[in-house]
Amino acid sequence: MPIRLSNLFLRTLREDPNEAEVTSHKLLLRAGYIRRAGSGLYTWLPLGLAVKAKIEKVVREEMATAGAQEVFFPALLPREPFEATGRWTEYGDNLFRLQDRKKADYLLAPTHEEMFTLLVKDLYSSYKDLPVCLYQIQNKYRDEARPRAGLLRGREFVMKDAYSFDVTDEGLAKAYQAQRDAYERIFTRLGVEYVIVKADAGAMGGSASEEFLSPSPIGEDTFVRSPGGYAANVEAVATVVPPKISIDGQAVAEVLLTPACSNIKRIVAWSNENNPRTDGTEWSAAHTLKNNVMALVSPEGKRELVVVGLPGDREVDVKRAEAAFSPNEIEQANEEDFKQHPELIKGYIGPVKDGQAVLGLTGVSKIRYLLDPRVVEGTAWISGANESEKHVFGLVAGRDFNADGVVDIAEVRAGDQAPDGSGPLELARGIEIGHVFQLGRKYAEALGLQVLDENGKLVTVTMGSYGIGITRMIAVLSEANHDDKGLIWPEAVSPADVYIVAAGKDEAVYEAAEKLALELEAKGKTVILDDRQKVSPGVKFGDAELIGVPNIVIVGKGLEQGDVDLWDRRSGERRPVKVESALAELL
Amino acid sequence: MPIRLSNLFLRTLREDPNEAEVTSHKLLLRAGYIRRAGSGLYTWLPLGLAVKAKIEKVVREEMATAGAQEVFFPALLPREPFEATGRWTEYGDNLFRLQDRKKADYLLAPTHEEMFTLLVKDLYSSYKDLPVCLYQIQNKYRDEARPRAGLLRGREFVMKDAYSFDVTDEGLAKAYQAQRDAYERIFTRLGVEYVIVKADAGAMGGSASEEFLSPSPIGEDTFVRSPGGYAANVEAVATVVPPKISIDGQAVAEVLLTPACSNIKRIVAWSNENNPRTDGTEWSAAHTLKNNVMALVSPEGKRELVVVGLPGDREVDVKRAEAAFSPNEIEQANEEDFKQHPELIKGYIGPVKDGQAVLGLTGVSKIRYLLDPRVVEGTAWISGANESEKHVFGLVAGRDFNADGVVDIAEVRAGDQAPDGSGPLELARGIEIGHVFQLGRKYAEALGLQVLDENGKLVTVTMGSYGIGITRMIAVLSEANHDDKGLIWPEAVSPADVYIVAAGKDEAVYEAAEKLALELEAKGKTVILDDRQKVSPGVKFGDAELIGVPNIVIVGKGLEQGDVDLWDRRSGERRPVKVESALAELL
Repeated sequence: MPIRLSNLFLRTLREDPNEAEVTSHKLLLRAGYIRRAGSGLYTWLPLGLAVKAKIEKVVREEMATAGAQEVFFPALLPREPFEATGRWTEYGDNLFRLQDRKKADYLLAPTHEEMFTLLVKDLYSSYKDLPVCLYQIQNKYRDEARPRAGLLRGREFVMKDAYSFDVTDEGLAKAYQAQRDAYERIFTRLGVEYVIVKADAGAMGGSASEEFLSPSPIGEDTFVRSPGGYAANVEAVATVVPPKISIDGQAVAEVLLTPACSNIKRIVAWSNENNPRTDGTEWSAAHTLKNNVMALVSPEGKRELVVVGLPGDREVDVKRAEAAFSPNEIEQANEEDFKQHPELIKGYIGPVKDGQAVLGLTGVSKIRYLLDPRVVEGTAWISGANESEKHVFGLVAGRDFNADGVVDIAEVRAGDQAPDGSGPLELARGIEIGHVFQLGRKYAEALGLQVLDENGKLVTVTMGSYGIGITRMIAVLSEANHDDKGLIWPEAVSPADVYIVAAGKDEAVYEAAEKLALELEAKGKTVILDDRQKVSPGVKFGDAELIGVPNIVIVGKGLEQGDVDLWDRRSGERRPVKVESALAELL
Repeated sequence: MPIRLSNLFLRTLREDPNEAEVTSHKLLLRAGYIRRAGSGLYTWLPLGLAVKAKIEKVVREEMATAGAQEVFFPALLPREPFEATGRWTEYGDNLFRLQDRKKADYLLAPTHEEMFTLLVKDLYSSYKDLPVCLYQIQNKYRDEARPRAGLLRGREFVMKDAYSFDVTDEGLAKAYQAQRDAYERIFTRLGVEYVIVKADAGAMGGSASEEFLSPSPIGEDTFVRSPGGYAANVEAVATVVPPKISIDGQAVAEVLLTPACSNIKRIVAWSNENNPRTDGTEWSAAHTLKNNVMALVSPEGKRELVVVGLPGDREVDVKRAEAAFSPNEIEQANEEDFKQHPELIKGYIGPVKDGQAVLGLTGVSKIRYLLDPRVVEGTAWISGANESEKHVFGLVAGRDFNADGVVDIAEVRAGDQAPDGSGPLELARGIEIGHVFQLGRKYAEALGLQVLDENGKLVTVTMGSYGIGITRMIAVLSEANHDDKGLIWPEAVSPADVYIVAAGKDEAVYEAAEKLALELEAKGKTVILDDRQKVSPGVKFGDAELIGVPNIVIVGKGLEQGDVDLWDRRSGERRPVKVESALAELL
């Protein structure tokens, strides 16, 4: 049966709703696909549900092709499994927690690694049972600090999450590839542009974690790509480490009075004026060592100060820092922190004072000191001297100071070199639509998922996790497929195959439109029929453009000459065809 | 693609799991349809998901036929709408409540009356927009005090809930009938036996609320039916009120010393011995007035005592009492209550003492006094006299005592007369599988859902709510369709149309089974294929019986003669057919 606008539960809006900022959100509200039910919570109207069902169907088909089997877990889960893996605490404020009437702890699951692990443990016990790949399509929950952009970042959202279980690393690699391939097929079928980017620094072999990003100016993720094909999430970009420099023969470090030079700009200006470089070039911010005092707050609430030294021309990238210090949250050091560490002189912090280490676990401060990878042995720096209005010049890494480790959290810039030597990076923004991840044995170990191998020995299973944001995908598709008149769905996800507008007052128009709708449905096409009798053609055309079915048929004035108009929503082209041939044209 | 047991995520169990008490729960666990994830929380395995999908498909088709449109709400909802209707409090401990990171109150929705009301208010404003009927199929939450019987009473479960919106009462009646008809079609298609019972006492016209119960000895609901076709939930049975009796000429009430007669049995025995009836018949419990002291606890926690007087041969029915006093919870009066009311002498409580009212708002106790409908004017009773070891005889209702009202909470017994005169009632047990309910204007009033009528006047919309337990249905179907070997699904809900067992070691057996499976799938049939090569025929047959697909094909020994066996799971009948004709037989 065609969806008839005369009784469809729908009210299109001419104006952009106040609550919406991004285009997809505005259009999905205006065209009657969703309504707001609460902060980060959305209600699906019939048209929205139709699009969602189409996406789910494509995902199910490709999961089946990839050999994954569908299951379905509760969203409400007991605390214990998440306690066993530490995630009950690690999730921090992002987790919705609650208690039942017996005061037992529960949560609304953001993902289901623990439960899938326990389910396989529950049913399977031998290597012969593996490999297995399971998935579900399910409502997830995340107590976002700032729910925004409609479906892009909600607090209740639908995800497909899949998990693979293998005995060997080779098995995991194969399962990972099968899901990765399925994702490529899914996104291609859905008509969504995507880039596959590395999502971690490749410590586990480079393919351990990849994200599928859809390029978009409103994306929350920044990614980089090189002419040679490197692509990575900005969190995953490994800085190209410069070669060490010989320490031999470098000038001795020298402390100078640097009045009113408590920031990088001033110390650079002062240096060029009062202590110019001997090679004729200018000092720049890149010659200074900026020491950032940061506070890491663990999920349990423990606060630890850390100082990160990086070239003064680079800022800390918050997302890279969050990734590097996960699961800790990061705060700027506050007045209280400085009060407890009088050895830290704001604006003049540096690794050493009078040749003695100040920063670092073996230094005076006992504060962990980490360096940017660019601060290699032999590099010389201008740094604060831990005294007011004093800096030290020619402070050489590996000679004058050391650190507790390296941390790669400085911003990535366009023009930086790709870590694989494939050329300079360009930066772009994207929306994460999928994630494939070799979890390894972390969850299986925490929850005791072992099977007997061929020799009767217990071995721990290795896992992968693979997610696609179903509801987010609808926002992504809307962002990428619209014009100033409204949405323009790719055929694979359109709420109907054909949209018929009966335009006019003549009863014959409505009869012809109805007849065509039924004929199309009889041929397996889904149809939206605008059969509203008291609505003007202008309003009907506007609604057709807003709702965004790509194939529109107008049954109107032309009918007297035996014509209907085929209207391509994307190109805007309209052309008359004979009523008798309309059906054939639309199949 | 056929579902292949060689890789299906499944582990059948030979033994009944300890956690299960009722048959459906045992079999669904043993046959690998569900697994427990927590108290009242279940995970759906692939076979279970297949059955669930079939039920949802039938429900969706019949909802569409009934003109209902599908939407989908969040399960996580803000407190405010539920506060507006009072349900935030009324739900008491049954509601899962939680707070987000900003300490705002949320709940996991048990049903969505408020949200549907607000959605229609959000989109619609005119009588021309109505009627509309909306539904969703969604996970619901209820913090059950005692989750039990697997899917029959869980804490997360799937329901179809529909809501109708009309301007007029006639419109509501029509919408109600359309849903009621759809329910009959749905249950018939699913092959589930059902009885439609009145679910309230008919104060709103008799059809205001009906339940669909599936008769079952493990049902939690007791219902009654009469030979003349009356059927009602036990909560909804209205007692047939006997005619009044003339007070004129009845003997004066008389207080007697009744030593050690603090219960009904003793006072009846004492009376027959020491104060026999003058008409030659015996005293019985039915001649005594039993005064039950009960405490009503409001959702806000307010405690109120109430005394209910009923014939001594009837007990209070807890469910009827809960329904009558809803939303209050009911407790027995405790020692503290009696301490605060020294005028209540346990075992000797009655409405009057020395001619003065003791019970009732105008009595000494100020405790509300309610009477069973059988205690009509002119009936004479043996009652406690509010003094230790004293009873009053011939206490006449309407002459010697009065009450604050009538309450119909005494147990219903087999043999009681149906309220519509259709004969004596019989009692049976059933499981609630559906509920249709004319809500009227309660929610629309609380949430301000009004539309303009034909005269431009604002009128409040009238609503109906209609629910079907989707996951519960699976348990109900399992209860009704099994034998000692396992499940026997009705065809409409079977996880597959055909179940093929390849039994034997010969490769030809597996090839023939595979060929038949693919041919069946090509013809649109779904197939489960037991293609496990190292499993004995006995185990395979056992699994086939446990899993319960009604049509089984055995490809085995007979293949040498060109035969396969068709096995009717329900009747147990097996008959050989030629391989070439098997396909035709199964279509």
